[in-house]
Amino acid sequence: MRALVWDGARARVVEDAPDPHPSEGQAIVRVLRAGVCSTDLEIVSGYLGFQGIPGHEFVGRVESGPPDLVGARVVGEINLACGRCPVCDAGRSRHCASRTVLGILGADGAFAERLRLPVSNLHRVPDAIDDDTAIFVEPLAAAHRAAEQTAHLVGSNSLVIGAGKLGLLVAQVLRHRGDQVEVIARRPQAAQIASEIGVASSASLEKAGFWDLVVEATGSSAGLAIALRAVRPEGTIVLKSTVAGHHDLDLAPLVIDEVTVIGSRCGAFPPALRSLASGEIAVRPLIEATLPLSEAVDALRHASLPGARKILIDPGC
Amino acid sequence: MRALVWDGARARVVEDAPDPHPSEGQAIVRVLRAGVCSTDLEIVSGYLGFQGIPGHEFVGRVESGPPDLVGARVVGEINLACGRCPVCDAGRSRHCASRTVLGILGADGAFAERLRLPVSNLHRVPDAIDDDTAIFVEPLAAAHRAAEQTAHLVGSNSLVIGAGKLGLLVAQVLRHRGDQVEVIARRPQAAQIASEIGVASSASLEKAGFWDLVVEATGSSAGLAIALRAVRPEGTIVLKSTVAGHHDLDLAPLVIDEVTVIGSRCGAFPPALRSLASGEIAVRPLIEATLPLSEAVDALRHASLPGARKILIDPGC
Repeated sequence: MRALVWDGARARVVEDAPDPHPSEGQAIVRVLRAGVCSTDLEIVSGYLGFQGIPGHEFVGRVESGPPDLVGARVVGEINLACGRCPVCDAGRSRHCASRTVLGILGADGAFAERLRLPVSNLHRVPDAIDDDTAIFVEPLAAAHRAAEQTAHLVGSNSLVIGAGKLGLLVAQVLRHRGDQVEVIARRPQAAQIASEIGVASSASLEKAGFWDLVVEATGSSAGLAIALRAVRPEGTIVLKSTVAGHHDLDLAPLVIDEVTVIGSRCGAFPPALRSLASGEIAVRPLIEATLPLSEAVDALRHASLPGARKILIDPGC
Repeated sequence: MRALVWDGARARVVEDAPDPHPSEGQAIVRVLRAGVCSTDLEIVSGYLGFQGIPGHEFVGRVESGPPDLVGARVVGEINLACGRCPVCDAGRSRHCASRTVLGILGADGAFAERLRLPVSNLHRVPDAIDDDTAIFVEPLAAAHRAAEQTAHLVGSNSLVIGAGKLGLLVAQVLRHRGDQVEVIARRPQAAQIASEIGVASSASLEKAGFWDLVVEATGSSAGLAIALRAVRPEGTIVLKSTVAGHHDLDLAPLVIDEVTVIGSRCGAFPPALRSLASGEIAVRPLIEATLPLSEAVDALRHASLPGARKILIDPGC
């Protein structure tokens, strides 16, 4: 099959990638659309040590698997846990130490014509959600995760640092639950998109020490220091950026101001599917372009441009 | 009066420090006993920019103030808030931006014959608590603060990193609320004290990625990195050390493992007074020696020796 392959040194589209074969409890999914995420860009920069087919945001149609699922349009949770260790037993399978992760860690991903996932990872996509919109289930689940971890802070004055795709999804989720939300959007284009989706923005931090909740979604190691300046005493910071490398930080303010910092990664899909089906979260303004799988290398290059919105890959054309 | 004075370059005992004069709403307290804390050692190393009389752990007798309080034995909360700003209005007066702090920030402290505090900061000491024990109200309040901030984690597997005075108070508070507590005590002497007060200890981190709750009380910038190795996925770290200078840290594990880090400083006195009066927290094994105020410079030197327990200062002898 056709697929984008990263061999550790070079990303290229091949026509002879081996078709995935299902094991017990797994399904084969024909990819209808995949999305490029900044994690994919880290992968093809060699940071994560992954080799194989990247891509973890997708919507597809089940080609083989349980009879009642064949033909269904699905999205898939990306963590493949062992299901047998103490971490899985404790209900934290997304943190299973021997997990693989679709297109990120030890498992081929979605920049291909077909992919393989455990049936238990798949979720049917309601008709109300079209293919382009369905790509946002995975990042929106990560945005909902930030809200879930701060459920006790509903109604807060909440600041989102970073007006990239994830930041603008987080801002919408927090606004929808009742927070007073502002996003820091340094680029005029990002401020324009924020305005389109009805989220207030500022170009820089204006109210230091004011915000009850600060979500750091800059994708940069500089984000936490800004967040520490922004948050009020006894306030909460949600840290979304997994930045390769080290932070050089003065953490005394964290202790003196008794700030809480919560690391936040992936989330469960059902809340994201519900809020996309209801139309309460706008994602169309976040889409930049759709490219065919044959041009996936260009798609990655395009996605890495400063201020780029979501690039979609269509394996069917 | 006699007092230890730090002039920014040198600490010395003087006989002619001006007696404190009370303003409206304040009381003058004759100091019966003061305790040396590692913050005092930072002050006389010049880190905090303070000049004047250090010392913030004390028990004393009210010499002048409201008639019903004169003669009472008291301890005092150390943050002097403005009482008028939005932070104070929100009930977070310990974080008032224009606060002074007894013996730490803009207010003379307890290494003196007398000190001045707002009446509202004072708490009567029950007879069941002797003077030496009362010195531990302030650090024990800081230990209770860690428990208060993690009240949802009662019964956890909890690790305290650092078996200094604060670490051993935190370990006792957590054990008393029902946690399964272990403390990392690198020095044999600290392990011995832990054993005396009935807290299990180990010389180094044995169970990485295991602990639900990790309290970092090392007083060192290395503590957080150890805590990140110790805590389980979705676990909680309480950070107690305010270390001058920068941390060089890889924070990716915090995000990937969705760890929560809570900065923790001072606490309210009533829970500490209750648990000292009931005898549920052992503090006698934490005391090293008592020196007269005239030897306060030696007291600070003694307190700075590796593994030193609590040094008390007695202004009355």
